[in-house]
Amino acid sequence: MTWASIDLNADLGEGFGRWRLTDDEQLLSVVTSANVACGFHAGDAATMREVCRIAAERSVRIGAQVAYRDLAGFGRRAMEVPPDELAAEVAYQIGALEVFARAAGSRVSYVKPHGALYNRVVGDEEQAAAVVEGVRLAGGQLPLLSLPGSALHSLAEKAGLPVVTEGFADRAYTAQGTLVPRGEEGAVLSDPAAVVERSVSMARFGVVAARCGRTVAVRPRSLCVHGDTPGAVALARRVRRGLEEAGVRVEAFG
Amino acid sequence: MTWASIDLNADLGEGFGRWRLTDDEQLLSVVTSANVACGFHAGDAATMREVCRIAAERSVRIGAQVAYRDLAGFGRRAMEVPPDELAAEVAYQIGALEVFARAAGSRVSYVKPHGALYNRVVGDEEQAAAVVEGVRLAGGQLPLLSLPGSALHSLAEKAGLPVVTEGFADRAYTAQGTLVPRGEEGAVLSDPAAVVERSVSMARFGVVAARCGRTVAVRPRSLCVHGDTPGAVALARRVRRGLEEAGVRVEAFG
Amino acid sequence: MTWASIDLNADLGEGFGRWRLTDDEQLLSVVTSANVACGFHAGDAATMREVCRIAAERSVRIGAQVAYRDLAGFGRRAMEVPPDELAAEVAYQIGALEVFARAAGSRVSYVKPHGALYNRVVGDEEQAAAVVEGVRLAGGQLPLLSLPGSALHSLAEKAGLPVVTEGFADRAYTAQGTLVPRGEEGAVLSDPAAVVERSVSMARFGVVAARCGRTVAVRPRSLCVHGDTPGAVALARRVRRGLEEAGVRVEAFG
Amino acid sequence: MTWASIDLNADLGEGFGRWRLTDDEQLLSVVTSANVACGFHAGDAATMREVCRIAAERSVRIGAQVAYRDLAGFGRRAMEVPPDELAAEVAYQIGALEVFARAAGSRVSYVKPHGALYNRVVGDEEQAAAVVEGVRLAGGQLPLLSLPGSALHSLAEKAGLPVVTEGFADRAYTAQGTLVPRGEEGAVLSDPAAVVERSVSMARFGVVAARCGRTVAVRPRSLCVHGDTPGAVALARRVRRGLEEAGVRVEAFG
Repeated sequence: MTWASIDLNADLGEGFGRWRLTDDEQLLSVVTSANVACGFHAGDAATMREVCRIAAERSVRIGAQVAYRDLAGFGRRAMEVPPDELAAEVAYQIGALEVFARAAGSRVSYVKPHGALYNRVVGDEEQAAAVVEGVRLAGGQLPLLSLPGSALHSLAEKAGLPVVTEGFADRAYTAQGTLVPRGEEGAVLSDPAAVVERSVSMARFGVVAARCGRTVAVRPRSLCVHGDTPGAVALARRVRRGLEEAGVRVEAFG
Repeated sequence: MTWASIDLNADLGEGFGRWRLTDDEQLLSVVTSANVACGFHAGDAATMREVCRIAAERSVRIGAQVAYRDLAGFGRRAMEVPPDELAAEVAYQIGALEVFARAAGSRVSYVKPHGALYNRVVGDEEQAAAVVEGVRLAGGQLPLLSLPGSALHSLAEKAGLPVVTEGFADRAYTAQGTLVPRGEEGAVLSDPAAVVERSVSMARFGVVAARCGRTVAVRPRSLCVHGDTPGAVALARRVRRGLEEAGVRVEAFG
Repeated sequence: MTWASIDLNADLGEGFGRWRLTDDEQLLSVVTSANVACGFHAGDAATMREVCRIAAERSVRIGAQVAYRDLAGFGRRAMEVPPDELAAEVAYQIGALEVFARAAGSRVSYVKPHGALYNRVVGDEEQAAAVVEGVRLAGGQLPLLSLPGSALHSLAEKAGLPVVTEGFADRAYTAQGTLVPRGEEGAVLSDPAAVVERSVSMARFGVVAARCGRTVAVRPRSLCVHGDTPGAVALARRVRRGLEEAGVRVEAFG
Repeated sequence: MTWASIDLNADLGEGFGRWRLTDDEQLLSVVTSANVACGFHAGDAATMREVCRIAAERSVRIGAQVAYRDLAGFGRRAMEVPPDELAAEVAYQIGALEVFARAAGSRVSYVKPHGALYNRVVGDEEQAAAVVEGVRLAGGQLPLLSLPGSALHSLAEKAGLPVVTEGFADRAYTAQGTLVPRGEEGAVLSDPAAVVERSVSMARFGVVAARCGRTVAVRPRSLCVHGDTPGAVALARRVRRGLEEAGVRVEAFG
């Protein structure tokens, strides 16, 4: 299955106070969807406001990048958060971001869990249900970005929320269509040509070559490019140009 | 100047995680306006949700109790926060609370600064302007609770925001109508009969006896009762009953 | 196996800023070892100083109650902290407490993990090794309090650190000698007579009745009494008196 | 007044979790004293450990860079911290760092307040006294780095603690020998030749040209080079080389 168009998303606003991580200004000229950090793993209020301002100006869609409450671990450490706390924390983050999206003339248009929470809700039904409850608490019908077949997606659909499947331009896949864990050799691809080729393949044909060589279906409606690595902006630009040269329209989903 | 009715407000939801401070459940059966802590000086997401739920059930008005980012100091330590950061932080807190107010079928209906920020914006125009900007960022036309004659009120009025003057049932006043600082002898009144008498005087006639004995005009539209002291609930009940017995209607402002 | 004497320990200093949880002053007149919160799950610097001052005055032994960095969750949420970070965080907490212990004329004399970390290192070798490394980083030869047979104890012994087995006066045990998880029915005992009886049984004979009725050996060198429940001080006093009346000497281990 | 030698200090370890700020590895090959962030404005436990390891390896002196508890503001926002809390927090930070200094075979050898606290204790006697009390709590006789004539220095001397005067290689001075505030035009010098020239002047003759052109005595025993600006390492290297070429020995103080 293929789409005539693909969305490009990146994590933005991932500084905190004095610290900066992502080149928000530049990336907002490349992506069509901005996953904005909401203060729990990164992101302070002034940065959230500024990212929303630029995103709205450039018609980049604003999404809430919700995370575990863990600045010290950048939201990358799995946590056993009781479901009712997790649901409330997800809603809290969405609400805080909504203020800045609206002030900029836009809205929060989707939700993407970050880091350890992203990985956890692929398979953990309890936490996935808590994220879904948090999104429902926040109101509206916000779509949830996740891997195809995730617990988050199946529970979101049951709850009547839209889902958006996501692919990763620079990550290796297993034969089952899951991501090779970061710790393992070759988990992150750094060859720009390969990253572009795989992006085009995922966008046009919905498939990607797994690490073992087999072709797997991942059918992404949105492609994630990373913003926190050296050369991130240049790579994101190449991916976008590569997609456009291959005849894929790069535009926000739905 | 007097009003036919007076509002009773209290700080609520001032626990954090394992810690509790205020008897939210009981106080919500006494007050007409709930200043809900928004996570910066106190208040976690799950508590905010629960306080909003009960407040909405009992038709108690929900206000955002915005504060400096200072859990360790409970928001009671003045901080030199740059105005753009402070404005964004105020908006962030309002937005986070709004999610829970809406989920409970209510709305955030006013804003009251907490602790050191409350005192600071009585006279500090820079921080007062930042709070006003934060409230405007959050949208709507939320009234601001403050002392009569405060910098916050005069800047809010210039910005077209409604203002609500506040009196304190259990605090001593100077001849100028400001609060005797907490550190000083007799700053906080503990005799219930005196607290009730002063409440009635402020509600009916808009005046209170200053520490020096002189009568000063404070014209409160809302009276604050404290929720974090032993016997707080009983005292709040007495104040409310005393007001009602004196023929004052106790109801939310505007 | 029995001992002529038993240690009584309790978690102390578990407030944070404006919030209080444990009646430190009273408990320090009952216990022989104080597990002092070090700022990661609870405990601020001023409280740590004060608890150390009173503990030293009363010759109560001071221990570092090390925890995950999680004020919002009170250290009760398991976290996937990378071992090198966890080891450094354990050392950091011990060092911070050592300053106050020394200033009071005492020393940090042992280490006890808190909450989710306590439970985790019973079976998780990676995190247990990290805790042991943290204790070694902090220098000295600090004993580690844990359940008998824990991964923490076996790794500590391999590293040449002393270990101290611990029993719980008010918790139900399984037939395997582990604690019945808090979530389950009957996990925490509230009948004072039963708590005292079990304490005496553990202190004199090293055994306790498991939930199923079978007698299990737990051989504690130290008994934990809880400080954060209503009636905690009274219960701790009864346990101590019960032990003394049964001829057990209550004194710090080692 | 001149010294045969001068100390070079820099703020190090000022990252937090995922965020990095200073090139610790490179700066530790240039400076003779490392002001290590202790976790309150920046600095996590793993980073503190690593910076101490490299510093000890290269015989760079380790100092505790104590700060207000303010990660969001990087310790640059003045705070009204009650003296007893501030004293305890200073001691806490020193104790935490001491663990890593000792584990690396070194010791904490001095204390330097950071950011807003540094500026505050130049003139504020209450907070200066609290810092001195914190250093005394931490034990030993740690020298305090500050501007000449500061309240911190006069109170430290009264308390019997050594003091070390500090100069700033890249900051403009007023005719009174204080620093031109960061907000003002020309407060920070960026011309490397000028920075080197002023460093040599301060090290050899104890004087520097104030903004108005007048020569003022600053008599530094230690010169601060900044580590958190682009080109910081190159500039620090030039300063060191310039000093050595001018015949000044660059070595840790006392």
